[in-house]
Amino acid sequence: MSKTIKGNAVVGQSGGPTAVINQSLAGVIEAVKKFPGVKKLLGSRFGVRGIVDEKFIDLKKISPAMIKKVAATPAAALGSTRDKPDTEYCKKIFDVFSRNDVRYFFYIGGNDSADTAHIINELALNANYELRVFHIPKTIDNDLRVTDHCPGFGSAAKFVASAVMGDDRDCASLPGIKIDIVMGRHAGWLTAASMMARQDESDGPHLIYVPEAKLTETMFIDDVAEVYGKYGRCLIAMSEGVEDEHGAAWAERIAKSVERDSHGNVQLSGTGALGEFFSLLVKEKVSARLGGKKLRVRSDTFGYLQRSFAGYASAVDQKEAHLAGRTAVKYAMEGHTSGSVAFRRNPGRTYGITCFRAELKDVARITKPLPREFINERGNGIKDAFRAYALPLTGGLPVIGKLW
Amino acid sequence: MSKTIKGNAVVGQSGGPTAVINQSLAGVIEAVKKFPGVKKLLGSRFGVRGIVDEKFIDLKKISPAMIKKVAATPAAALGSTRDKPDTEYCKKIFDVFSRNDVRYFFYIGGNDSADTAHIINELALNANYELRVFHIPKTIDNDLRVTDHCPGFGSAAKFVASAVMGDDRDCASLPGIKIDIVMGRHAGWLTAASMMARQDESDGPHLIYVPEAKLTETMFIDDVAEVYGKYGRCLIAMSEGVEDEHGAAWAERIAKSVERDSHGNVQLSGTGALGEFFSLLVKEKVSARLGGKKLRVRSDTFGYLQRSFAGYASAVDQKEAHLAGRTAVKYAMEGHTSGSVAFRRNPGRTYGITCFRAELKDVARITKPLPREFINERGNGIKDAFRAYALPLTGGLPVIGKLW
Repeated sequence: MSKTIKGNAVVGQSGGPTAVINQSLAGVIEAVKKFPGVKKLLGSRFGVRGIVDEKFIDLKKISPAMIKKVAATPAAALGSTRDKPDTEYCKKIFDVFSRNDVRYFFYIGGNDSADTAHIINELALNANYELRVFHIPKTIDNDLRVTDHCPGFGSAAKFVASAVMGDDRDCASLPGIKIDIVMGRHAGWLTAASMMARQDESDGPHLIYVPEAKLTETMFIDDVAEVYGKYGRCLIAMSEGVEDEHGAAWAERIAKSVERDSHGNVQLSGTGALGEFFSLLVKEKVSARLGGKKLRVRSDTFGYLQRSFAGYASAVDQKEAHLAGRTAVKYAMEGHTSGSVAFRRNPGRTYGITCFRAELKDVARITKPLPREFINERGNGIKDAFRAYALPLTGGLPVIGKLW
Repeated sequence: MSKTIKGNAVVGQSGGPTAVINQSLAGVIEAVKKFPGVKKLLGSRFGVRGIVDEKFIDLKKISPAMIKKVAATPAAALGSTRDKPDTEYCKKIFDVFSRNDVRYFFYIGGNDSADTAHIINELALNANYELRVFHIPKTIDNDLRVTDHCPGFGSAAKFVASAVMGDDRDCASLPGIKIDIVMGRHAGWLTAASMMARQDESDGPHLIYVPEAKLTETMFIDDVAEVYGKYGRCLIAMSEGVEDEHGAAWAERIAKSVERDSHGNVQLSGTGALGEFFSLLVKEKVSARLGGKKLRVRSDTFGYLQRSFAGYASAVDQKEAHLAGRTAVKYAMEGHTSGSVAFRRNPGRTYGITCFRAELKDVARITKPLPREFINERGNGIKDAFRAYALPLTGGLPVIGKLW
């Protein structure tokens, strides 16, 4: 295996946007520029779709000043896609790669993108086509295997914790029951981040429900009534993907019509149905439990703001996402054929990470749930250990002042 | 009229929280401490409700360090209320005031709170009870009369513009039709703030609907189809209070059940119904207009995050809210009997404001709609002049980088 190979490089972005996916792109661009062996760096517009359609941007022509601005901008500057290439699709990709002398492929995305990279790498090996394929992790869901955490999560966690922190003060100002629906189809990492909003025992979120712990109607009613009895209010953080006792997603049970993307994922965002359903449950059943007390109940579905809000990214997350992009290029130039960039947390009390190369197959497809040890026994809260894990990734959170 | 009178002071917060309502509270506390004639400064818990219930906090006992932390914390640190005192309620307030030798009353809130202050002032005058009553403006809706703008609006405007800015990049990454529902029951000021997200002509929001311009179903379908035809996507910012051609709120038409607070206001927040309704309209009718094209349609209702998100307040708004609190105390100590603190924009190119005293009756009750001259002729967009008005209040917005 030769160390560097001459040819062109392609970089693409895939899946749901994050606040720092463009940092990784900037990292790739800046690192590639240092290797004269790489002739063109082609940015594919809208992920793999841009490869088969041959819609490329010559990224070396973009000014360093603009790259810097793009890096600080949320969402995918190259455009993203939900396409998941099958064999036919991949053949088209190779066709384009060979015709354009593409020898490096950097794909920034989640586990589906790692899978895409894996498939393409396997096909390249089988076809004896010398290609270096690297996956650069990106997801607000933080659900990729191997790595300690994922670029994109820290910023989303900062957003969710700040939103819930402020909303808890709102709920303390005008007491009632408030339900905040947080993104997370299968994994509760981002919803768990809401626990960082708590500074004192009486602070919300008082209840946190994640898909990893089952949520029954009875449990919900009991929990809310108990918290309300204690504090005269109740703030709830709930994953959009919470499941009932049979493992069925509540949102699916509730939704009259469901929509699936090409990966077979049900779209849970963009609807307030889940929050509305549990609000109604409070109005009817918790109210009855409390002797018919009229309760002020509201719900908010945080939606896309969690992944693309401008101007509030985590500085730590930004730095690490950029590093992940640069590191993928470094691995490729060192002569590795494929891999996914992963983070290992440094030992010691000061937060820091070291990158290492993971195998694509170990990151592809299967997601990493929130470990059970972070969830309390009843399954309605997150333990303090999670704060130690997640707080450094946010780059710090606001501090709350209270008069009582 | 004597200049200063000896006695106690009461301060309260009312209505929907903002990110800077505690800055005004801090301003009052810090200013009152300079006047030894004021013996106790009592913070009433949960607005006027705390007065009649005699639930007070001795605010002079709170450390300056904690006051500083409270000032930077969103929502009402004293607690808020939706109560609107009638004559009976006000008699109780006087009872408490006279028994506690209260001679100063500072009430931080919107037009309803100005009305409350006005009623209390009138009753004090009629009863020959020497009381100095000052209203300190606060509302994310920016709909108070007399003043150039309201403390609380700048931070909410910054939040909305940043949210829409990021969401526009999200929508450009995964093109489709996106509807963002923004707070504003009767006035479109906050929804108009979304226009600041636009840097180039092709940027969203491509359509902005406010309650001041009527929105018909036909108009909506025509508008979205036209924008989609031009850009292959469409980002829409819509006030929660948008009205149909008959002046009826769309949200009321849509909602199966409506809830009213004690001011008779319908609760439009905490539900995704409005966004869902217009999403369905896109899926059915815009899609048909475009020859049956399957469209990716999503909606987000920004909800309480707009008024209480932690850590992202406008620095200008924070400063001005604090000033408003201090200025109310200054007016009271100068010997004025009553008033509301208002801002006048300084002439010249550099942004700055000067405070002046408005009459309570001129601020109470009636709201100030977004002037028609800020809205385009068709009623589906906001003119550039609005940016000059609103941008300084945000303290600056993020800058977006793009690759094409």
